[in-house]
Amino acid sequence: MAQPDPLKVPRYANLATFARLPAAGPEASVEVGVVGIPFDGGCSYRPGARFGPSAIRQASRLLRGYNPEQGVSPFEVGRVADLGDLPCTPFDNRRAVEEMHRQVAALLPRVRRMPVFLGGDHTISYPILKALSEHHGGRPLTLLHFDSHMDTWDDYFGEGFTHGTPFRRAFDEGVLDMSTSMHIGLRGSVQSPDDLEQDRALGFRTIRCAEVDELGGPAGVVRRIGERLTASQNASQEAPPLLCYISVDIDVVDPSAAPGTGTPECGGLSALQLLTMVRRLRTLPGVQWVGGDVVEVAPAYDVSEITATLAATVAYEIISLAAPGPRL
Amino acid sequence: MAQPDPLKVPRYANLATFARLPAAGPEASVEVGVVGIPFDGGCSYRPGARFGPSAIRQASRLLRGYNPEQGVSPFEVGRVADLGDLPCTPFDNRRAVEEMHRQVAALLPRVRRMPVFLGGDHTISYPILKALSEHHGGRPLTLLHFDSHMDTWDDYFGEGFTHGTPFRRAFDEGVLDMSTSMHIGLRGSVQSPDDLEQDRALGFRTIRCAEVDELGGPAGVVRRIGERLTASQNASQEAPPLLCYISVDIDVVDPSAAPGTGTPECGGLSALQLLTMVRRLRTLPGVQWVGGDVVEVAPAYDVSEITATLAATVAYEIISLAAPGPRL
Amino acid sequence: MAQPDPLKVPRYANLATFARLPAAGPEASVEVGVVGIPFDGGCSYRPGARFGPSAIRQASRLLRGYNPEQGVSPFEVGRVADLGDLPCTPFDNRRAVEEMHRQVAALLPRVRRMPVFLGGDHTISYPILKALSEHHGGRPLTLLHFDSHMDTWDDYFGEGFTHGTPFRRAFDEGVLDMSTSMHIGLRGSVQSPDDLEQDRALGFRTIRCAEVDELGGPAGVVRRIGERLTASQNASQEAPPLLCYISVDIDVVDPSAAPGTGTPECGGLSALQLLTMVRRLRTLPGVQWVGGDVVEVAPAYDVSEITATLAATVAYEIISLAAPGPRL
Amino acid sequence: MAQPDPLKVPRYANLATFARLPAAGPEASVEVGVVGIPFDGGCSYRPGARFGPSAIRQASRLLRGYNPEQGVSPFEVGRVADLGDLPCTPFDNRRAVEEMHRQVAALLPRVRRMPVFLGGDHTISYPILKALSEHHGGRPLTLLHFDSHMDTWDDYFGEGFTHGTPFRRAFDEGVLDMSTSMHIGLRGSVQSPDDLEQDRALGFRTIRCAEVDELGGPAGVVRRIGERLTASQNASQEAPPLLCYISVDIDVVDPSAAPGTGTPECGGLSALQLLTMVRRLRTLPGVQWVGGDVVEVAPAYDVSEITATLAATVAYEIISLAAPGPRL
Amino acid sequence: MAQPDPLKVPRYANLATFARLPAAGPEASVEVGVVGIPFDGGCSYRPGARFGPSAIRQASRLLRGYNPEQGVSPFEVGRVADLGDLPCTPFDNRRAVEEMHRQVAALLPRVRRMPVFLGGDHTISYPILKALSEHHGGRPLTLLHFDSHMDTWDDYFGEGFTHGTPFRRAFDEGVLDMSTSMHIGLRGSVQSPDDLEQDRALGFRTIRCAEVDELGGPAGVVRRIGERLTASQNASQEAPPLLCYISVDIDVVDPSAAPGTGTPECGGLSALQLLTMVRRLRTLPGVQWVGGDVVEVAPAYDVSEITATLAATVAYEIISLAAPGPRL
Amino acid sequence: MAQPDPLKVPRYANLATFARLPAAGPEASVEVGVVGIPFDGGCSYRPGARFGPSAIRQASRLLRGYNPEQGVSPFEVGRVADLGDLPCTPFDNRRAVEEMHRQVAALLPRVRRMPVFLGGDHTISYPILKALSEHHGGRPLTLLHFDSHMDTWDDYFGEGFTHGTPFRRAFDEGVLDMSTSMHIGLRGSVQSPDDLEQDRALGFRTIRCAEVDELGGPAGVVRRIGERLTASQNASQEAPPLLCYISVDIDVVDPSAAPGTGTPECGGLSALQLLTMVRRLRTLPGVQWVGGDVVEVAPAYDVSEITATLAATVAYEIISLAAPGPRL
Repeated sequence: MAQPDPLKVPRYANLATFARLPAAGPEASVEVGVVGIPFDGGCSYRPGARFGPSAIRQASRLLRGYNPEQGVSPFEVGRVADLGDLPCTPFDNRRAVEEMHRQVAALLPRVRRMPVFLGGDHTISYPILKALSEHHGGRPLTLLHFDSHMDTWDDYFGEGFTHGTPFRRAFDEGVLDMSTSMHIGLRGSVQSPDDLEQDRALGFRTIRCAEVDELGGPAGVVRRIGERLTASQNASQEAPPLLCYISVDIDVVDPSAAPGTGTPECGGLSALQLLTMVRRLRTLPGVQWVGGDVVEVAPAYDVSEITATLAATVAYEIISLAAPGPRL
Repeated sequence: MAQPDPLKVPRYANLATFARLPAAGPEASVEVGVVGIPFDGGCSYRPGARFGPSAIRQASRLLRGYNPEQGVSPFEVGRVADLGDLPCTPFDNRRAVEEMHRQVAALLPRVRRMPVFLGGDHTISYPILKALSEHHGGRPLTLLHFDSHMDTWDDYFGEGFTHGTPFRRAFDEGVLDMSTSMHIGLRGSVQSPDDLEQDRALGFRTIRCAEVDELGGPAGVVRRIGERLTASQNASQEAPPLLCYISVDIDVVDPSAAPGTGTPECGGLSALQLLTMVRRLRTLPGVQWVGGDVVEVAPAYDVSEITATLAATVAYEIISLAAPGPRL
Repeated sequence: MAQPDPLKVPRYANLATFARLPAAGPEASVEVGVVGIPFDGGCSYRPGARFGPSAIRQASRLLRGYNPEQGVSPFEVGRVADLGDLPCTPFDNRRAVEEMHRQVAALLPRVRRMPVFLGGDHTISYPILKALSEHHGGRPLTLLHFDSHMDTWDDYFGEGFTHGTPFRRAFDEGVLDMSTSMHIGLRGSVQSPDDLEQDRALGFRTIRCAEVDELGGPAGVVRRIGERLTASQNASQEAPPLLCYISVDIDVVDPSAAPGTGTPECGGLSALQLLTMVRRLRTLPGVQWVGGDVVEVAPAYDVSEITATLAATVAYEIISLAAPGPRL
Repeated sequence: MAQPDPLKVPRYANLATFARLPAAGPEASVEVGVVGIPFDGGCSYRPGARFGPSAIRQASRLLRGYNPEQGVSPFEVGRVADLGDLPCTPFDNRRAVEEMHRQVAALLPRVRRMPVFLGGDHTISYPILKALSEHHGGRPLTLLHFDSHMDTWDDYFGEGFTHGTPFRRAFDEGVLDMSTSMHIGLRGSVQSPDDLEQDRALGFRTIRCAEVDELGGPAGVVRRIGERLTASQNASQEAPPLLCYISVDIDVVDPSAAPGTGTPECGGLSALQLLTMVRRLRTLPGVQWVGGDVVEVAPAYDVSEITATLAATVAYEIISLAAPGPRL
Repeated sequence: MAQPDPLKVPRYANLATFARLPAAGPEASVEVGVVGIPFDGGCSYRPGARFGPSAIRQASRLLRGYNPEQGVSPFEVGRVADLGDLPCTPFDNRRAVEEMHRQVAALLPRVRRMPVFLGGDHTISYPILKALSEHHGGRPLTLLHFDSHMDTWDDYFGEGFTHGTPFRRAFDEGVLDMSTSMHIGLRGSVQSPDDLEQDRALGFRTIRCAEVDELGGPAGVVRRIGERLTASQNASQEAPPLLCYISVDIDVVDPSAAPGTGTPECGGLSALQLLTMVRRLRTLPGVQWVGGDVVEVAPAYDVSEITATLAATVAYEIISLAAPGPRL
Repeated sequence: MAQPDPLKVPRYANLATFARLPAAGPEASVEVGVVGIPFDGGCSYRPGARFGPSAIRQASRLLRGYNPEQGVSPFEVGRVADLGDLPCTPFDNRRAVEEMHRQVAALLPRVRRMPVFLGGDHTISYPILKALSEHHGGRPLTLLHFDSHMDTWDDYFGEGFTHGTPFRRAFDEGVLDMSTSMHIGLRGSVQSPDDLEQDRALGFRTIRCAEVDELGGPAGVVRRIGERLTASQNASQEAPPLLCYISVDIDVVDPSAAPGTGTPECGGLSALQLLTMVRRLRTLPGVQWVGGDVVEVAPAYDVSEITATLAATVAYEIISLAAPGPRL
């Protein structure tokens, strides 16, 4: 059994690994691997996401083996393990991004089904996406990006590698499939109308927080995502499955449910709305999940672990997407 | 007047009794009595619900005498009082359950309309239900159980009296009416699919958190409850009112609104959804409310009393169910 | 540019002014001015709103210049500035109210478009409304009051100037247009049914929290507000625009999203619901926004600034109402 | 036994009375009575001491019956009870002071040995001292005042009844014995050198925090107090015992040990130093303890009850001073 | 090197093991092993010490390899590792104690120099002491017990295995050397004078908190301990080294420095005083350190990890006692 | 008057400037200027000191105009103002250090007596020291460095500009007078004995925390500092005053009094000890105070502002050193 029996080993006991899964050494081969990237050097406001991986692990102790929401047993797909953290310098963003990229690239051949990354700030998504696309023969990836911000700025204080710029870098490198990639959950003020226009010019489409209700709630949001994905696939007959990556900035959720984050934005999704969206991604046809991340958990601002518990649950739902089972 | 006049005695003044009601000695006879059971020896994760009763009392100071949501004056049904706590050992679960049962049994003859219990962890519901059923001549009770967990495990570390097992014990003792009892608000991971099947085999029916929206929100949930209750009653023509007990594990609510609890589960009800469900229980015909509890408030994890205030409000709404007035 | 460029001056740098706007001296003339009134001597339960203005300013650092939700640039209407606080005694409510009234009256001629006040407890709304009505030639004002409480009690401990009485005083002074003024978000227990009846007798109409869903959510709430406003205007042909004032007690929002407040009431609006309502006020025709306030932020009870951030965002949306742009 | 047996009734159980003592009705006669005065309308900075009494009660549950530090059993002097709170208006300082004075005066004849008051802010000490002096036939009282501030300002915003002025009012009324009264623990910045000189001109003598070490620590401080008391008594041969009142502003302790207070001042006493001083007051000859207070506990700023627990312990040590036993 | 190089692997990275030491499997043989026992079923007031081991590990990340205070490199004595936790039931104290004893006994043959245990509540010390004495051929152990409480009650609610009784059980089993064992740091109220006398009758000697200064501070306290140890040894000429066990209840420290604990007692040691005492134990001649524990860290009551960091530092100093080096 | 009259303007009112001093524009000339440097890109563990300046300002509202501890009126030396913050990039340490140096250099000619800097992490001290030495004609400065760490590492992750390296950089640049510079308050574990030796080889002398008591407490510590300073001056007859800079890392204080910091180290100074040391620096002859800083306040880890209040008080005492008055 992947997890120790909670009727014999209390869930609060032992070293904190993700979901009480076994820790695996650096050379392990796994089906699914959970990996921390404790970096927050790209944060523009409240730092501290470097402690995200350890907080999420601690908060994940209550996760159990069967997921009724998706109808799957995500830890019984083969070896599923906590692979520890990828260390990188906190002092030099450019070097840190190189260190992340190198280590993610080294890891991917040993993770058969799906790696899930625990941030860290959003800077980490760029080197992950780059390594993943390379790992998949250079094919561009569909990004499903849940966030209150677009994170497609060109630079910030003249620096190109920050938590506000990862998807611009990914765009620049050509690792994103711009006919399918989307932002979900955007809201709040921006510098100027240009921000929105430039993002749209890159090819992103968005579902703003304010649209969720009129789309019919989380199920409607996923339907809309599905429409864009299908439109893209119809265009290219006999298409292979889309390679999909899901990136969840925990600040897509309202600060009431995710206070522990770096750039909070009021008026966000409820925890249940986000979880329902992620769970229902399972309904999308023609999709291969190649990875995911949950980022921007800043534990110093968390209260009673609610942000970290939510992030752990989101990671659990992402892992569940990779498990065989009904399409809901 | 049941409460001191808040225009003359500030609500923050004096000893913290529930809703600023008078404290009653152990021999008092009342219409409605609020009783704490400060026990958390059955907790499997974050303990501390032993401080639940004192925190709920402190947080209940803002409750006032007229409840517009149900259209009743719950403290004007006769003598309504805070009966203090039932002490029991923190060190031996089996003995503690016996102590609770004995004290609840002794109390019931003096509480005419309805006792409401403040937990404590969910272990307390079993001795309460047993004593209540005995008090009502051995008639089985309809349990309306709001929780994110089923709490129908057989044992835990070989122990039968824990916060994960009260309703299995109640089932074993035959004190539940299995044709009507329900779980509302279930969600999140479980050990295995068997957990769900065994619960169903006991006879429970459930409304999962994920179903609330598709049922039409809180009002729809209560309609569904009503359907099950009515179906049962129709089967037995000329039925006496169902003896209904409501047990609210505060973790049925999302951790954002109830962080102060022992086994938080993300993606739960909003506070308003829970309150609306409890308020609308008033619409159910053919029901006699025989008691209720609010459990699993762990104040050490609470922030600014939001969990305790919510628990106090839930208790207030339960008390209001026992007050005469319109059926909404 | 009204705000320093965040790509050059970090948003966490420099003195905390509202939204990083320039601070203006006492003699400044502005289009829109943000003004703190740090008074909480009228609080009946948890005090501390005197620290509201400084907490809201600190939490407002993330607000940016373009508001996509309303489609406007609220800081580009001319000079927009933080005018600092209006000092008043914490020790004598009557004198404090006079000090507020005098200072607000002195300020209004220099604020062309709209002043927005940061409380402080709700006591402050009365002297503001009085001064505003006087400033507008004695015309009565339409009050749109978002709150879980009515705040129309006559007195409290024999004192007429408290956070429970501002709108009764305003009514007494004739500064409210009783054919249009409304409470939105009421909920929870009151002293007696009379409280509700007396409020209604004054002329207020209310939308209770429990009605929001059945009205169709925030958009429906604003439609209902619009109906009352239009009805009033139709009655008086060729009417000038209504002079509207918006007063937001942050406790209209559920304690999960606004724990930092003085008299929390469970089961409130979500942050998104409140923000959507305020944003959609923009759709109302025939309205001139003459001012607004956000009150009852008690930072000592806040967690990770979520209440203060929400209050800052509400103030930002109110300011945006005064900016030219599409009516949505 | 005054307290319930903690081996049978858990200390976390039941209504929170001071030290788990019995609650007594308003007409009770007692040897020692603990009384709350939940008033903070005199606070000039961080309010919230109105919640002091309830927080101190909750934190006092661990206090036990025998005090080895003084070698006495303070609850076995006869009837010792928690007399609840004296309500007063939060909205009018002058009226509140009258209400306090009237209620304290009514209470004193029924408290034989000593009343101990739980604040509330320091405003409360004036009406207490006045009533006590009157109760003792108008004899002036020796004030031993532990505080980081002198609290002898004349007024504040033109108001004479605030937490910065109680001892000036008491001086004005002639209820203090200026040949013996002292401040202990003063420190930090003041408005001007005049503040210190005026206080000295009133007759107070002081032991500043910075002098504690050079006096030889807490024992030396109490020796110095004793010297002043004795000098006074020697002057008047065959003197009756001095009527001594002890007033402890919890901010005399460093904010690290007493964060939950209204006007924190860094560099204060340690908790052990304060407790040792109070305990050693027992060594003073020729003293009759007529009352005491512990004030300025603002629970909203407390962490894990450390301030409230300390205040409860200080109150316990004051009560112990009134118990017969060795003089140490 | 025992720890990863902090110049290459950030200290906040990777799974939280004690002091970033390697985790060792259950069959490992080590010189020094750190072991958690996450049990708090014996707690009589604020529970939560079951989360002590994980919190102490997380807070220990800053501990480095060289200890200048003792002049030793504690992790370079051979293999030093984190051995994880010993699981035991939270629901049955008697069974839990048996499980602890069995697992500690199984562990001792593989820990050459010294095991250090992280609690958990103080219940754990009894099974540890019993197993250690057995491991050392039944020789009684010298207990140096730092605590604000004696923990030598006979039972509690009729239960013999609680956090108030471990040393009474150890005495009963004859595993303590009563000619040398001591309590250090006692203070605060007790049930009755008998408590103190019974403890003394068992043979314990004590240094109360109030005596620390008059003994000359921490150095004097350790001198006094040394005197008792030497007196005992002189009696038996040519004595083998005393087998010493150190048990540190974190509540020996003042709540200001250790708020995160279950039964706080005001007026305790400063963190520096406790650390200095432990460090100077190194000066004692004729002592063999056979083990130690740090208990009663309840993280839910901690603030910013100060209690857990202190507990980690204490454990580090205990480990350092076992390292070869100067005797100071 | 430098500060608004607190009897007329409440201290909680208006924008948070240091000690309620006037804010001065960038071109102002002052006697004493307080300057924030909100940079924490050099932090190796818990980040967040970028919010230090705003937290210290908010916590400084209680500081008053006369300082009895030093016997001076520090704000009456001429114009004393809050000069705001020096912005710098959070994303590139090397560039940030250049930006700091450039802005400090530009500032110094306009600050006649003394600038006091509010950090930010300890990285900021290097560019300040460099600019100050240049401003003083290249004369090396005496550094009095209060800290639990030496901060003289050569690099960290290959980066030379971090919070662990400022004084090594300053040494490399020759801006320190190595015959007088000292560390005070060092404690806790280090990587290896070499760390201590290398620091000593640079010329620093240290007073470890463990030595404070044996030196006779804070007064003795300052005597020892004075001895080193005098020895240096005697060597060079007819010496001009030493140019002294004081750098206070708030973590020199025990985490109980300064929890809000990045790399806490248990067993530190009490707040009173640190303040007494700084105050008594006034007694040193032959010294010219050229500047000071207070760094490493990380507000996200603070509780109830105790760390920020202490930092504000330390800054106030440093400013007081520059005021004319008695030498104590």
